[in-house]
Parts: sequence; structure tokens; C-alpha cells
Amino acid sequence: MTRAVAGGYSVFPVNQIPELHEGDDLAALILDRIELEDGDIVVVAQKAISKIEGRIIRLDGIEPSDRARQIAGDEEDPRRIEAILQEAKSIVKIREPLVICETRDGFICASAGIDASNTTEAGTLILLPLDSDASAAALRETLRERSGREVAVIVTDSFGRPWRQGTVDVAIGAAGVVVLQDLKGKRDPVGHELRSTVIAVADEIASAAQLVAGKLDRIPVTIVRGLDLRGEGRAQEIPVPAERDLFR
Amino acid sequence: MTRAVAGGYSVFPVNQIPELHEGDDLAALILDRIELEDGDIVVVAQKAISKIEGRIIRLDGIEPSDRARQIAGDEEDPRRIEAILQEAKSIVKIREPLVICETRDGFICASAGIDASNTTEAGTLILLPLDSDASAAALRETLRERSGREVAVIVTDSFGRPWRQGTVDVAIGAAGVVVLQDLKGKRDPVGHELRSTVIAVADEIASAAQLVAGKLDRIPVTIVRGLDLRGEGRAQEIPVPAERDLFR
Repeated sequence: MTRAVAGGYSVFPVNQIPELHEGDDLAALILDRIELEDGDIVVVAQKAISKIEGRIIRLDGIEPSDRARQIAGDEEDPRRIEAILQEAKSIVKIREPLVICETRDGFICASAGIDASNTTEAGTLILLPLDSDASAAALRETLRERSGREVAVIVTDSFGRPWRQGTVDVAIGAAGVVVLQDLKGKRDPVGHELRSTVIAVADEIASAAQLVAGKLDRIPVTIVRGLDLRGEGRAQEIPVPAERDLFR
Repeated sequence: MTRAVAGGYSVFPVNQIPELHEGDDLAALILDRIELEDGDIVVVAQKAISKIEGRIIRLDGIEPSDRARQIAGDEEDPRRIEAILQEAKSIVKIREPLVICETRDGFICASAGIDASNTTEAGTLILLPLDSDASAAALRETLRERSGREVAVIVTDSFGRPWRQGTVDVAIGAAGVVVLQDLKGKRDPVGHELRSTVIAVADEIASAAQLVAGKLDRIPVTIVRGLDLRGEGRAQEIPVPAERDLFR
């Protein structure tokens, strides 16, 4: 059922993981449902990590600032905007009520990664994990200890992109896997040294996983099996340093 | 070998496709090597399409303009910059010698999609197909006629992104598949109407395929099997209309 095709790989869901709450043992929930193999990449939606880490706040405990009210206008809940402003490390662009900002981890996305959908209960917001690379590393370590398997973990979120409509899932945390695959110095078959030589494989794995995880299906964990991308990358390698960034 | 896992999908290469040249019958090369199934998504690297469509120019036939020389400086071949300026529909940003521009098809990327690596021979540049949606539709039709299978085709290219390092493969042409999956109006399990509700599934499929295609392995065609995403999307749906675009 889970065999990788020759020269290829497979992506499949871990089905029937229940609604998650703070303190839940996600590793146990995964290992009860699937037999991991060496080299598997366990892809976990950010919301699952945030829920078990208790990164949920209640809207009714938030007092919006004047600035939050101004950005929110009539279209948005100013308490949600206030939460975004408090979570953001810096603001990249505002077109009311949309706020593009830099997260604690240095990723640039809408709303500091805060979302009101798929929350455990109405009236709450789910914040990003405090350190998604650390969350990935911790889950990886627990899975290794209990299963004896060398697996990787990628934590994903759905990000919009400049210039292209729609969201794609990207990596915001990683452990045990190549994140940026550097082909620098290698030559193509005609002998050109490759120019555009760094491939964001962790982001591509996140996108591959989204195609089965879906938004409405509530599948927080997906397995990618058959890729040979073991490594020690961290999602923190991904953000373009501000001084080199053409678009902020 | 090519069975999709339960609830999941598989990605595998079409191996041993030879070096491609203008006029080659790509459909025949694919069908000689693989038995397609209904619902398969045939993912083809842009360079393969460009080669069979003859979208190759020789550097030694290009006379660079003063502007091209200025942008090129000492780091770049001014003839390559001249080709980029001629191919671009508009220029979004220049940081010499890097040129970010809009392609004929409306996609925003570096160098108007022109690349010098993986060309058939040294001293040439490969341009993007003139209309990648049309290229995808034509290949899909030929594959259908000859195999009797309802398949989709996605044409891909490797694009850099603002804010995130490394390239990911994205869709620049599509036929027979959902491109933007709109969940608008659907509700998550807690009853929130989903906000960020459009998923760029064709881009995610392109990224999933890149993970086996590789840059150095010269695998121009990849099969994605087991996803239920039949539709009539076109990659032309993807670009954000200029007047709504926060980042140009």
C-alpha cells in the first residue's frame, strides 16, 4: 500500500487523527496509525503543532489599539488585527485590512500567520508556533526514539505569494531533511555551471503534501515516502536576509 | 509499480527520454515509455516544450543595446540581457545584472524565463514557449487521441520567489486539470467560512514533480498519478492582475 514507485515517491495521509488539543501526544497518534520507514518525511500542518503547543488566544481577551481599529475599518475584526500587530516582528505592507508582515521566525506572510479558520472553537485565533524548527526537531526526536526509524519532519503553512494567485503550502519548520538543495558548482550535461542552483525542496515537499491534506479534510499529518533528501536543514535558512531582499 | 497509495498519490519519472530537438514527437516518446491511466497528470518541463517548438536562439546573432550593456556590467553577457529585454512584456525590477520581468504570458520571474543552462548546445538561449497553455492543450489532445486516456498536462518552470530563497517549480501552462482550487463559501468544521480559500494546486503539482525531475538528471517528463483534480483550468488564471498586485 505504501510502496514508492520505481524512481518516484508516494504521498499519503495519516487518516483519522482526532481533533487536537494542548498537550496531546502527536507522535503517539501518528505511530498508532502508521508504520514509519527510514527516510520517511512526516509533514505536519502548522495548526496541529500550534494546537498541541497551546498557541491559541481568545478574541474576547484582546483590546484593539487605535491603529488596529484603523487598519480593520469596517471589513475586519479589530481584535484580530491587534493580534497580528502584536505577533509581527515587522510590517512589510498594509492595504487595509490586509497586513503583510514578518513573523517571529522571519517568514513574510499575510496576517503574521494568524488564522481564524479551522480553530478548535469559534472566537479563538491560532498563532504560529514560537519556533517551528524546534517543534519539528522535537517531534522528529520522539518519533525516532519510539519507532527506531530515521525520519524527517516538516511543519507547513499555507502562504500567498506576490504575483501569483492562490496559496501554496511551504515549510516553516524542518528537521532531518534537506531544506535548500544547493547544486552550485555542478555542471549540466553541456558543461554550463548551473546558475539558478538552489532548489527549495522543503517548500516543494510541503506543497506536495498539501495536495492530499486539503483544507477541509482536516488531515494534519501526511507522509512523503521514497525521496532521498536526508539532511540537517532548518526552515530558518529560507528567508532572504532583509539587506539582500528586492521586495521589502 | 505505479499504484497510488490509499488516499494518496504517486509521482514518478518517465525515464530515458532522449535529448529533444525541434519537431520531435513528445507524445510518442512518452507513450513508448509508459502506460498512461485516466486521471494521470503529465508534467513537462518548459525546456522540453521550448526545444521541440524551436524556441532557441543563438547568442552570436544578438546585438546588445546600450541599455543591455549597462545592465549587464562586467558580470553578465550583454547579449543575454538584450534577449531578456526583447522577450519581456514589462520590467518589474532591475538590480544589475538581475532583471525581474513579466513574460509574454503574464508571469513575473527573473530573466523573462530565459536560461542558458541545460541548453542543447553551448552558445544558445532557450526562450519560454509562446503560449504554454496552448502547448499543454496540444500535448494533452495528442496523448488522448493516441492512448484513449483522459489525462492532464502541466508545463512547469523553476521560479525564484520574493522573500524566500531557492527556486520552486510552478505551472506556466495547463490543460485538463484544476489550476486554482476555489473553496470559497465552504465552511470548516467549526463553521467559519474559509477566508484564504483559493489553493494554487497546479503550482503544487509542479513542485511535487520537480522533486523527482531534478535539474541535473535531465528528466523532462514526470507523471503524477492518483490525484482527483480533473478540470479545465489554464495557467493564465494564475497571475495577479496588475491593478490588484501589491508587489509590482
